[in-house]
Amino acid sequence: MNEKKEIETDTMKARKPFRNFPMVPRVVFGRGSFDQLGDILLARRISIDAPMIYLVDDVFEGTELVGRLPVIFQDQVIFISADEEPSTIQVDTLVARIKTDHSERPSGIIGIGGGTLLDLAKAVSVMLNNKGSAAEYQGWDLVQRPSCYHVGIPTISGTGAEVSRTTVLSGPERKLGINSDYSTFDQVILDPDLTEGVPKDQWFYTGMDCYIHCIESLQGTFLNAFSQSYGDKALQLCREVFLGDLPPEESRDKLMMASWHGGMSIAYSQVGVAHAMSYGLSFILGIRHGLGNCLVFQHLQDYYPEGVAQFHRMMVKHNISLPTGVCAGLTEKELDQIVEIALGMVPLWENALGPDWRSKVSREDLKRIYRKI
Amino acid sequence: MNEKKEIETDTMKARKPFRNFPMVPRVVFGRGSFDQLGDILLARRISIDAPMIYLVDDVFEGTELVGRLPVIFQDQVIFISADEEPSTIQVDTLVARIKTDHSERPSGIIGIGGGTLLDLAKAVSVMLNNKGSAAEYQGWDLVQRPSCYHVGIPTISGTGAEVSRTTVLSGPERKLGINSDYSTFDQVILDPDLTEGVPKDQWFYTGMDCYIHCIESLQGTFLNAFSQSYGDKALQLCREVFLGDLPPEESRDKLMMASWHGGMSIAYSQVGVAHAMSYGLSFILGIRHGLGNCLVFQHLQDYYPEGVAQFHRMMVKHNISLPTGVCAGLTEKELDQIVEIALGMVPLWENALGPDWRSKVSREDLKRIYRKI
Repeated sequence: MNEKKEIETDTMKARKPFRNFPMVPRVVFGRGSFDQLGDILLARRISIDAPMIYLVDDVFEGTELVGRLPVIFQDQVIFISADEEPSTIQVDTLVARIKTDHSERPSGIIGIGGGTLLDLAKAVSVMLNNKGSAAEYQGWDLVQRPSCYHVGIPTISGTGAEVSRTTVLSGPERKLGINSDYSTFDQVILDPDLTEGVPKDQWFYTGMDCYIHCIESLQGTFLNAFSQSYGDKALQLCREVFLGDLPPEESRDKLMMASWHGGMSIAYSQVGVAHAMSYGLSFILGIRHGLGNCLVFQHLQDYYPEGVAQFHRMMVKHNISLPTGVCAGLTEKELDQIVEIALGMVPLWENALGPDWRSKVSREDLKRIYRKI
Repeated sequence: MNEKKEIETDTMKARKPFRNFPMVPRVVFGRGSFDQLGDILLARRISIDAPMIYLVDDVFEGTELVGRLPVIFQDQVIFISADEEPSTIQVDTLVARIKTDHSERPSGIIGIGGGTLLDLAKAVSVMLNNKGSAAEYQGWDLVQRPSCYHVGIPTISGTGAEVSRTTVLSGPERKLGINSDYSTFDQVILDPDLTEGVPKDQWFYTGMDCYIHCIESLQGTFLNAFSQSYGDKALQLCREVFLGDLPPEESRDKLMMASWHGGMSIAYSQVGVAHAMSYGLSFILGIRHGLGNCLVFQHLQDYYPEGVAQFHRMMVKHNISLPTGVCAGLTEKELDQIVEIALGMVPLWENALGPDWRSKVSREDLKRIYRKI
């Protein structure tokens, strides 16, 4: 899941008071369902001067997908690179541009892409209706006014961003999401055909985002029956996709559903060792979330023996080679710093190892793992 | 599922255009979560004169549950018997009573009970904001104006009514639901503790509503990956509950989630032989949905061999005796009429047996089954 630091408080123990979980109120699933976007948006157009704004991953620039966007009246298509993770400055700039370009506020924001584009669409829709800079809303439940209508259309499966209320942003002071019920999409379109053509490495790392999340939450101590049922299903689908021999279409269908259920399972669960350690890695080395999780998880056989063994079988089956020597150039001081960050993720360790987790993990254990990466 | 006749068109083939499925936008799950109702409603109170109306199954009259209702200001508790299935007259009467009793329109309607009470809460919330009689809205997507805020709190698991957009009503001319996106609850509270104390037979029949639905839809020809993933999970949970040896609390948790996922699976799927035949039984003999499905399903080994064998193991394990001789008193003419109704459910037969279903089932086959009931 692309929740990063905010997993610390935005995923919860399954204890009272129980979270009142916001679900996406509308969802379409089906191969080719992308073409229903025009009809869906028609009912949401406020006026001919209130445009729909399409935020689209720039890998689609010049592709046939763009021709299928239902662009009418004052609608605007903005291509955005997903090479960098989204930032508060990027959100503020986009909001300013949209306000400048149009005489009326938009009828809606449509995010088309992976976790980065979906998070941007969430953040822009929030900031169109709330004053100031996105940086002021990094945190939990700081958003006061409902967001602009927004639609999420994933083109890669595994992040769960399509179903979560989190939007990860790098800010001037910190990397922290806008975690708000107003972030949740008003509409999601799940068209597995859109994930055709994703490069294999990216497909694997992003799928593993879902797989590793499930292993951690299902083996954790914070779970309840709601999250377990979603997590079990997501895990089972990941296994079918990455260890089975499904036809490509069925594989895309199922990975899209795995991501969806994995995102739902976050309601009353928590991640664990891989996310804690991966966060340290991302923070110091700027390694992206999906890859970072894989780099750590491959060495966690002491914590998740079955999950890690299965992960290695998946790597072999799909001929995936993870980068090596990633931590080779780190000084002892930098390594200490990474360990410090990882150990700071208290709820993750508690979920993974129980309340007495401090007696079960040492700084030296973690260093040993990082040195292997 | 408690959708009855409207399953004919309210559950769909997984084909274009794909349904834009309305999901419940807020859900709380947890043992004891019922006590969060007060806080949840507080944010929805329009004024002190705009009451919350609690529609409560009258089996709870005088129980401690009533003392836990957050009744303040002009709030009203109305106890309703679930012995009869809900009717349009009952809905109209309730709406008139609520309008007479209060100077302002309600802030919300809270349905607490099984499928009947949940359906009534949906229908009343629709009719508070739409003119005329509920009978005028029986059908598909006839409701024009959004419903009053409404909350569903199931106290028995299996109907899926907490998550569906259907509300089954007996009307002056026909038994047919108000099928509308506006029927879907704005909030659901899933507190498995509320299902403690349900009589065993009712627990079994209602749970089988979910189980049989899943067997039919998963073995059907209309399925897609979305509905399959939910249906698979619901079925697996039913098996754990009815064939496993779970502690009572875990059993209640899991059956509540089975019902939830079973209701979600309806999005792009269809039921089959048991529902078609059970509908004939309900229509002529007034047999309730859950029991009717069981009465038919026990004899469907030719259509669902594994599902029926497992059903019999569940019956034995829980010492369930179904009524016998139910169709004994029927005349040949009445039997013909039941068969006629059953065979009229074309999409269900097509889902179960494929487009050439007529060559695979005969009137005599069905009569033979009914005679065993």
